[in-house]
Amino acid sequence: MVSLKGKDILDGAQFSREEIDLIMEVAKDFKKKLAEKPGGLDLLRGYVMAALFFEPSTRTRLSFETAMHRLGGSVIGFSSAESTSISKGETLEDTIRTVDQYVDLFAMRHPAIGSAKRAAEVATHPVLNGGDGAGQHPTQALLDLFTIYNECGKVDGATIVLCGDLKNGRTVHSGVDIYKHFDTKLVFVAPEQLAMPREIVEKLRAQGKTVVETTSLEDAIKDADILYMTRIQKERFADVAEYERLKGSYILTREMIERLNPNLTVMHPLPRVNEITTDVDDLPGAAFFRQAGNGVYVRMALIALVLGVI
Amino acid sequence: MVSLKGKDILDGAQFSREEIDLIMEVAKDFKKKLAEKPGGLDLLRGYVMAALFFEPSTRTRLSFETAMHRLGGSVIGFSSAESTSISKGETLEDTIRTVDQYVDLFAMRHPAIGSAKRAAEVATHPVLNGGDGAGQHPTQALLDLFTIYNECGKVDGATIVLCGDLKNGRTVHSGVDIYKHFDTKLVFVAPEQLAMPREIVEKLRAQGKTVVETTSLEDAIKDADILYMTRIQKERFADVAEYERLKGSYILTREMIERLNPNLTVMHPLPRVNEITTDVDDLPGAAFFRQAGNGVYVRMALIALVLGVI
Amino acid sequence: MVSLKGKDILDGAQFSREEIDLIMEVAKDFKKKLAEKPGGLDLLRGYVMAALFFEPSTRTRLSFETAMHRLGGSVIGFSSAESTSISKGETLEDTIRTVDQYVDLFAMRHPAIGSAKRAAEVATHPVLNGGDGAGQHPTQALLDLFTIYNECGKVDGATIVLCGDLKNGRTVHSGVDIYKHFDTKLVFVAPEQLAMPREIVEKLRAQGKTVVETTSLEDAIKDADILYMTRIQKERFADVAEYERLKGSYILTREMIERLNPNLTVMHPLPRVNEITTDVDDLPGAAFFRQAGNGVYVRMALIALVLGVI
Repeated sequence: MVSLKGKDILDGAQFSREEIDLIMEVAKDFKKKLAEKPGGLDLLRGYVMAALFFEPSTRTRLSFETAMHRLGGSVIGFSSAESTSISKGETLEDTIRTVDQYVDLFAMRHPAIGSAKRAAEVATHPVLNGGDGAGQHPTQALLDLFTIYNECGKVDGATIVLCGDLKNGRTVHSGVDIYKHFDTKLVFVAPEQLAMPREIVEKLRAQGKTVVETTSLEDAIKDADILYMTRIQKERFADVAEYERLKGSYILTREMIERLNPNLTVMHPLPRVNEITTDVDDLPGAAFFRQAGNGVYVRMALIALVLGVI
Repeated sequence: MVSLKGKDILDGAQFSREEIDLIMEVAKDFKKKLAEKPGGLDLLRGYVMAALFFEPSTRTRLSFETAMHRLGGSVIGFSSAESTSISKGETLEDTIRTVDQYVDLFAMRHPAIGSAKRAAEVATHPVLNGGDGAGQHPTQALLDLFTIYNECGKVDGATIVLCGDLKNGRTVHSGVDIYKHFDTKLVFVAPEQLAMPREIVEKLRAQGKTVVETTSLEDAIKDADILYMTRIQKERFADVAEYERLKGSYILTREMIERLNPNLTVMHPLPRVNEITTDVDDLPGAAFFRQAGNGVYVRMALIALVLGVI
Repeated sequence: MVSLKGKDILDGAQFSREEIDLIMEVAKDFKKKLAEKPGGLDLLRGYVMAALFFEPSTRTRLSFETAMHRLGGSVIGFSSAESTSISKGETLEDTIRTVDQYVDLFAMRHPAIGSAKRAAEVATHPVLNGGDGAGQHPTQALLDLFTIYNECGKVDGATIVLCGDLKNGRTVHSGVDIYKHFDTKLVFVAPEQLAMPREIVEKLRAQGKTVVETTSLEDAIKDADILYMTRIQKERFADVAEYERLKGSYILTREMIERLNPNLTVMHPLPRVNEITTDVDDLPGAAFFRQAGNGVYVRMALIALVLGVI
């Protein structure tokens, strides 16, 4: 019997298919229970989670905290490094070792790649990685998967378009680590400068996955089930004029969807700036806010599973 | 049967007399229950409120949060805009739509007039306006009314003096929207430059209300039941010398109360700076800290009513 | 029957031996109960504590908040003065009087000596001092005592070495106020410039206590049961070269412990910078992180006792 009790959640590559299935099943069950009656569950009364956010994050922090509260537990922590003992010269390891004495588990975000792993090495309680710089963001990848299940009813057989900054996006990299367990067709849409790293594409192909690369968003969405939009970040471009030209081709509009693929499901890790126009929001396939909501159920599942209460 | 279930609380003008009476009755009941036994109630276990404070506020934020905790619920949120995704270019609407997926209701403060209304338009859960810039502050007006009931035993027949910056004070404007439902005599005390806007005075008179305007605080409090003090804000004056002169006439002292009206009930939305001297604090009629405490019961009532749990 | 119901916890000198024994007993009982089953207790459901931290503190704030949550209660507050009405010119007394209307007790930290006492004078609910500048830190002193019981099984008969900045350390001063109730031998290790104040040493000797003063850490730890390390703060020295020389003699290493006293129990209020090398962390006697954990049980005891729920 597969179990996540006592485990850390550090990156997308750590999961077996059985573990992913378990997380999806528990998240689905929690979603059903919360829909059936208002309020939350009473699984974790008296439990305490540390939400240690060394850099600002509205979405991920509030989602983790909501998940803990819906399970009946409590939260301590901070939302920026400024109000911590870091300023007195304390190491990350000492901060974690101290808080480890107080709580039952950690949710953390930190600007340095590998910081969640460093925390997990000294903590005796489970660490859930809520983003470590340009590294990993595994809970985002899991909630994305859960959203695909909810919106399309299936993952196997789906055509998933990933669009935007595929070179630097931690969300997309953690995502590929999850999708590789499924029989999906992956379409990567990015300007050449921001293409998915070669080694990831080749590894997927070596595993027998169908991977298509293109620079045309319009071509890609015609036959897609899912479009996963991400922000293109201006600061990555040496040539501003080229940024402006490329950026323009990756603005998703309502007109494009209605003309090319009215059934398209649109996802986005948020926050968006201008890469999806607001007239898309009312389309039935605009799933990005529901996607944010799914984060609560998936994080509830992860919390309950690593604490071993279900 | 009047109900507030599912409604937003945006401004003082939205309420019918029946709704105001209902809120007062529920707040009174909660106050009684909390006085009878320590701790709180268990009405909202597992419910989550978002306290989104885009600008700092000790009093309003802590009061809303206490209200939610006393009802058995939990709170997520932030106390300044800096630790949010706003800095990544996200719109207020997108922030609200996202958090709307997590929680059961919102309490928010934002520096822009109309922001609470904008939030309510995209949120599927109730929004409680905790102050939108120079706009409205309806929960303050309701707790002020509740305080008058508690201190004087009645509102009809009361003479209420409003003193200070009546031109810009959102508290006072929301208050007038509430008092108009009652048979009160309103006395406005302000320097000419900060007088109550003409249209508000004329509207009240057109409704048959007794309204007196004066620049003398001493004259006004002689026959008053309630004095509602507010801060006069220096930055509104072009001529600093005039500010200094006027400001001096609106400092309430213990000597003034004992000489002119020992039974006067003194209220203030707080924080005060120097407009009420601290020797007033020990007088039986100094109600301003009790007034802050009443905010908890009124906000408990509003939360419970919009969530439909009572 | 000794009771702390309704009392403030302001400084180390306020306690009788009976009160100290009661706090230790309750803390021990809470520690046992939490070890027996995960989660917390359900003593304070619906109770609300204000955690008012006017200056940053990870450890003390999170420890107090955890203590309240483990007892089933809730927390409101702030973690820095910036998000408060202080910036609008409000006095500490007015802030406390307001929040006093909301909550059942206070935990507070403030940079000014005597601030906790000022708060206690206007609050009707108990105030727990979590550090008032260079003044007192009584809950730290109590958790230190609890740690000595836990690590050594006894306090009477123990030899306790206090090392570092004994002139300015509030932790150490609050500690001496507690240790004086026990039959301990106290050894003070400090550079001359940072020696324990004369009046404290003489007072202890007048009470018949054995007090030794030395500048040699190596000599001191040979026969010690406990070494209580604190940071030496560079900014106290006029002569930087002397700071560098002295600082070097007060770095505790694993080699020193293994050579001089392998059974030594090492404590530190944390955060440490470099005064204990990290190779000490794995020794069985390295108690400083467990010490942080003990803070939760001691603060649970104080909260429960001043609220009179046990």
